[in-house]
Amino acid sequence: MATESVTEGAPDAFEDLAEHYRRITGLEDAAGVLRWDQQVTMPEGGTPARSLELSTLSGLQHELLTEEDVGDWLHELADADLDPPEAAVVREIRREYDRATQVPRRLVEAISTKTSDALPVWEQAKADDDWDAFAPHVEELIGLKREYAEHIDPDRDPYAVLFDDYEPYLDLDTAERVLGRLRDALVPLIDEVSAADVEIENPFSGGTYPADDQEALSRSLLSSLGFDWERGRLDTSSHPFTSGNQFDSRITTRFDESEPISALLSTIHEFGHATYALGLPQDQYGSPLGDDRDLTVHESQSRLWENHVGRSRAFWELVAPEVRSQFDAAPTASAEDLYRATNRIYPDNLIRVEADELTYHLHIVLRFELERDLIAGDLDVAEVPAVWNEKMEEYLGVRPETDTEGCLQDIHWSHGSFGYFPTYSLGSVLAAQLYHHAAADLDDLEGQIRAGEFDALHEWLTRHVHRHGRQYTTPDLIVEATGEAYTADYFIEYAEEKFGALYGL
Amino acid sequence: MATESVTEGAPDAFEDLAEHYRRITGLEDAAGVLRWDQQVTMPEGGTPARSLELSTLSGLQHELLTEEDVGDWLHELADADLDPPEAAVVREIRREYDRATQVPRRLVEAISTKTSDALPVWEQAKADDDWDAFAPHVEELIGLKREYAEHIDPDRDPYAVLFDDYEPYLDLDTAERVLGRLRDALVPLIDEVSAADVEIENPFSGGTYPADDQEALSRSLLSSLGFDWERGRLDTSSHPFTSGNQFDSRITTRFDESEPISALLSTIHEFGHATYALGLPQDQYGSPLGDDRDLTVHESQSRLWENHVGRSRAFWELVAPEVRSQFDAAPTASAEDLYRATNRIYPDNLIRVEADELTYHLHIVLRFELERDLIAGDLDVAEVPAVWNEKMEEYLGVRPETDTEGCLQDIHWSHGSFGYFPTYSLGSVLAAQLYHHAAADLDDLEGQIRAGEFDALHEWLTRHVHRHGRQYTTPDLIVEATGEAYTADYFIEYAEEKFGALYGL
Repeated sequence: MATESVTEGAPDAFEDLAEHYRRITGLEDAAGVLRWDQQVTMPEGGTPARSLELSTLSGLQHELLTEEDVGDWLHELADADLDPPEAAVVREIRREYDRATQVPRRLVEAISTKTSDALPVWEQAKADDDWDAFAPHVEELIGLKREYAEHIDPDRDPYAVLFDDYEPYLDLDTAERVLGRLRDALVPLIDEVSAADVEIENPFSGGTYPADDQEALSRSLLSSLGFDWERGRLDTSSHPFTSGNQFDSRITTRFDESEPISALLSTIHEFGHATYALGLPQDQYGSPLGDDRDLTVHESQSRLWENHVGRSRAFWELVAPEVRSQFDAAPTASAEDLYRATNRIYPDNLIRVEADELTYHLHIVLRFELERDLIAGDLDVAEVPAVWNEKMEEYLGVRPETDTEGCLQDIHWSHGSFGYFPTYSLGSVLAAQLYHHAAADLDDLEGQIRAGEFDALHEWLTRHVHRHGRQYTTPDLIVEATGEAYTADYFIEYAEEKFGALYGL
Repeated sequence: MATESVTEGAPDAFEDLAEHYRRITGLEDAAGVLRWDQQVTMPEGGTPARSLELSTLSGLQHELLTEEDVGDWLHELADADLDPPEAAVVREIRREYDRATQVPRRLVEAISTKTSDALPVWEQAKADDDWDAFAPHVEELIGLKREYAEHIDPDRDPYAVLFDDYEPYLDLDTAERVLGRLRDALVPLIDEVSAADVEIENPFSGGTYPADDQEALSRSLLSSLGFDWERGRLDTSSHPFTSGNQFDSRITTRFDESEPISALLSTIHEFGHATYALGLPQDQYGSPLGDDRDLTVHESQSRLWENHVGRSRAFWELVAPEVRSQFDAAPTASAEDLYRATNRIYPDNLIRVEADELTYHLHIVLRFELERDLIAGDLDVAEVPAVWNEKMEEYLGVRPETDTEGCLQDIHWSHGSFGYFPTYSLGSVLAAQLYHHAAADLDDLEGQIRAGEFDALHEWLTRHVHRHGRQYTTPDLIVEATGEAYTADYFIEYAEEKFGALYGL
């Protein structure tokens, strides 16, 4: 590479490092566009070229990140007198540099090869309800991931090291404590909900809701919520996702013609992710200060909009007329009917991605407990189906009849992504904490939602969360945003209050 | 970069060079997707991120290409015993390496900055009919481009060096000879056409043709022509273009609701470009052997499909019923009416991109003569409007009233693209030569077109042109494909025959 080594001192090293990091962002965002294209617009046959393009970009990104110069700059800057934003930039780049240099290239490649091999095996095993076919691959991936964790820190719990890849600053003890509180609070709450025996109808069941109508409604709702179409898009893909940065943030969704509510809430969820990207400071683009914090914070933004806005009574009072008029075939459902339908709890559901707002977290707790024991060597891969089913029975009172609907349902382990699942629930917990404080700070937030006024909420989230980029670690960002440490209190209070009222507990 | 220098000898150097070049292709094709996205799908606000992405990719591409290792490998391979395809790979990479290393980085950047500055000035000057506002920028770009040519070869005609950037192997003498023959043959032919005073009506004039209907027709015709939708797309953009490779080749078009024929022929033109990419060998992807030859060959493929197929009587006999049925508002135009309408000659047209199949080349000859004299220093920039208008009068008997419709109409000079224009006509000439030989080799090609059978023509073009990638230089490829040297004979014969018949000359 053409960059020259710097010897004059800290400030120059900082500028050089920052300039160098912009190129890494350039490569990363270019790859983001290519992956979006692959899932949204690329013709089927394009895979071989796309593979070369993406592997070239990721290879170069790794080479740029691990260049000797980067180590030299970081070394120089270790004792430099930096202001807090500069220090944050150095902290974030150092963390990436350390991870990239600590793990040998051959191990990274072995994991990449193994996950490529494991993906189709998982797909087949899921189709065949055959855990034993997938198990050896999980076994191998666990071995590789343990080795990976050992390279990073041989003295720490390897699962804690893996968790750091998805949530680097909110340590595993915190995660474990929060997930434990969710389990302890939600298992009895769900029991009460089940016992209450309240039937909530889905006013859309039995109808047909053309994808075009659903798309028109999604676009209209995104506009109402304040989506900036000059910096964003909505498309369809087989799995909804969000991709982009502060200049160009793209949502995807998918439509089920038998049921329009799930696409709508999924779109609002992705909108939450997109607003985070769009709220990042434009003048810090290319720096960690212009990049999003990790998965917990990201998921807090999607869940806040999906659950605290999109599943609120006020929101359905706002949108019910439009929803009714969009679907010729729709029943004359009231706002209250729609509010109740979007908040129905169904503990007999076996599938995480179809779960309701309460049982979802027990799906996560189960996976967390299993993968933590797998990585620790306390659980044998062959035992996963039995333990999975026992825990489903224990937490949700329901037992999968097949592994297809049980321990084979998720793609994550075929990716070797051990430690990812917890961030979903951690994000929901943070969403409740942030929403509580936003509601405390803003004048009649519920009334604003009912009136379709979202500017103040956007402004609050941008000011307290988005604009900071990665300046703060996750725990510090939470303190900065809410004035207190990360806590599950608000989520549990919200859940008990909302579902207590809904189910007359 | 992580590549290691090689010292063991030619074969290893070849493998290393080829592997290294794959990464350059990966970067180039990634940038291609980003540019496609920018013109087709990117939200307006995405420009700042896209600029960083693209400048990062082009910077890295330059660095990879000019790495010391590349020079060392090329040096080793200079006297190595290589088979012809290997020798071609080395020839092609050497040429790129030489150009990239001969021109100082600061000059490349100065040209890039100057063209960025000149583009909006040209847009404004064109809007204001104000050549004098644009002239200093042209002057500066000429100076920079002369300097650029001097770095590459101080002993050659600088315009010949610039021409090489677009058409490296078909030297300027050949281009000049061919363009001279076009001028000498077409000026009198167009005079005769004008004198014949034959009126050809456009059966579509006065109607309205909704973009959706035009798009449906374009898609249907592309399918009939054999477009492989599993490896391609059709979208709209403000300027039609084609982008991609043998796995993923994307066409764009635009629709004018007052006139459906131009979009249709433009789509067929881009289809020709796309078939070239799709015919390149898949197993050579990432090597010059899997890459397209330069602009003349590319344009020969688009013009062959646009003119020799899309403007043929047989084609209109095939598609007239569908065209009529697609447009409710269309008159009951016969195949012959449509054939005649798509071949109407209108010498009073001032705009190159709207020109017919004959006058088009005089627009090119004019630009070629002007830019050659500008680069040579034989023509002052201030004199361009006067000379332009005189030549329009001389060649086409028509004189622009404004520079907006004259020397300010094209974007190319604001890009500093001196030497590009000739390749348009050179491609048409080659299209006629290739089509002549395809028709000689194939059984009743006209009948096949009339029957909607295009497989044999595709197969002929793939076998004689596409599959060779860059194995041959352009002149050698022409000999390989047709058994004879590049010649304007077939184009002139085709033009005189077709338009002689149409205009009763």
